Amino acid sequence: MKTLIIISHPEILDSATQSFLKATQKSFDNVTWHSLEVDYDNDLNKLDIEYEKQLLKENDRIIFQFPLYWYSAPASLKKWQDEVLTRTFTYKEDEGLLKGKELGIVTSIGNSLDHFQAGGFENFSLSEILIPYQALAKRAGMMFMKPLIIDQFIYMNEETKYNLYISYQKYISTKQDMNFTEKTNWLIDQLTNHYDLNNNDIIDQLKINKDDLDDLKMQINLMRQDEEG
Amino acid sequence: MKTLIIISHPEILDSATQSFLKATQKSFDNVTWHSLEVDYDNDLNKLDIEYEKQLLKENDRIIFQFPLYWYSAPASLKKWQDEVLTRTFTYKEDEGLLKGKELGIVTSIGNSLDHFQAGGFENFSLSEILIPYQALAKRAGMMFMKPLIIDQFIYMNEETKYNLYISYQKYISTKQDMNFTEKTNWLIDQLTNHYDLNNNDIIDQLKINKDDLDDLKMQINLMRQDEEG
Repeated sequence: MKTLIIISHPEILDSATQSFLKATQKSFDNVTWHSLEVDYDNDLNKLDIEYEKQLLKENDRIIFQFPLYWYSAPASLKKWQDEVLTRTFTYKEDEGLLKGKELGIVTSIGNSLDHFQAGGFENFSLSEILIPYQALAKRAGMMFMKPLIIDQFIYMNEETKYNLYISYQKYISTKQDMNFTEKTNWLIDQLTNHYDLNNNDIIDQLKINKDDLDDLKMQINLMRQDEEG
Repeated sequence: MKTLIIISHPEILDSATQSFLKATQKSFDNVTWHSLEVDYDNDLNKLDIEYEKQLLKENDRIIFQFPLYWYSAPASLKKWQDEVLTRTFTYKEDEGLLKGKELGIVTSIGNSLDHFQAGGFENFSLSEILIPYQALAKRAGMMFMKPLIIDQFIYMNEETKYNLYISYQKYISTKQDMNFTEKTNWLIDQLTNHYDLNNNDIIDQLKINKDDLDDLKMQINLMRQDEEG
C-alpha cells in the first residue's frame, strides 16, 4: 500500500505538531509527504494540477493533514480541492480515478476534544464538522477512514506523545481494522527495524505475549475440533 | 439594518445565478455587494484585511454567497475567513466585534435538493454540510440565519425564478421571522417603489386582503375585550 500525505498549514515551519509528525518520515518507504505551502513556496497559484493528479493516481491511501481553521482545512487545501478534483477525475459516476482508494484526515485542534459535542463549548462533534470530507469521499467512491484527531498537542506529556506517534504511524501505514495478532506483529516490526531496540524488554515482552496467545488459540482450535469431531 | 453580501465565485462573470441575484442590487440602499474575485482581481493575496474588518463592523447582517464547491465555499472565501477572522476580532469570549450580528448563507447547488438527505445521492443534508459555518457563527456570538439554498437554477421556470427573487430580497433586507402583516406591507412596498406597478392588480388585491385582515383583527380584539370586561 502506498500513502500520500497532503499537508496544508500556513505556518508549517513554526508548528510543533507538524515537526513531531514529520519525524516519522524516516520510518517509511511507501509514504509520500507533500506539503502544499512548502512545495509551492506559499503560492498556490503555482499549483501543478497534472502533477497533483499523478500523485493521487500513484497512491492508495490519501491523507489530508491540517490544523482545523474555522472548522475546516486552511484555504490552500480548499484551493487544491477546487482545482485538482475536477468532475471527470473525481466523480464516481463519471469513472473517476479515486474510486476504491482511502481518504484519511489527520487534524489538530487547539481546544480540548471534550468541547466538541452538543452542549459543549463548540457544540458540534468533529464527525459533524468533517462531514464535507466524508461527502467528498462518498462522491469519489473512496473509503472514508476514521479521522485521527490531535487535540492540544502542546499540553501532551511524553507518554501521550508516544501513543500519538504510534497511532499516527499506524494511520499512515497499516490496513484498517487489524486484528490483535496483526497489530502485535506490526508493533514488533516497527520497534525492531526503526528504533534499534533489538534487545529491548518491551519487544521481548510483546513476543512472549504473542507466543502465549498463539498457544491459547491453537488449544482453543483443538478443543473445537474435538467437540465437532 | 445594513447588510454586507460577501460573494465568492471563481467564475462569477459566467454565472447565470449570480447575474440573476445581482439584478436585485438596484432595489436597495442599505446593502453592500462585495465580490472577492472581482474586487481583488482574482488574486486573494491582495486581501486588504483592515478594509474587510471595517466593512464587517459597519454592517449588521453578513451574508456569505457562493456556489457549493466540494461541500463548502470556494477557496477565496476560506482564505478570507482564515485571514480576516482573527481570534481577537472574532471570538465571542475575546469580546469579538461580530457579536450580535447575523450570519446568512446563500448557496447554489447543481444537484437537486432532494439528493441531500440520508440515503440520497449525496447522503448528507445541507444542514449537516453547512455546520462549519454554524459553528463559526456560534464562536463569534452571531445569529445563524436559515440558509437560502438555490438548487438547479438553470432548470427553473419563470414562476420559480420570481419566487427566488422575492425570497432573496427578503433574505438580504428584512428582519427574520416577520409576521403576516409585516410581510404584506413589505411586499406592497417593494412592488410599489421598485417596479412602477402602482396601478397593478396584484397590489390592489394585496391591499384589499390586508384591509380585510386588519378589520378581522380589530373585531377579534373587541370581542376579547368584551369577554374580559
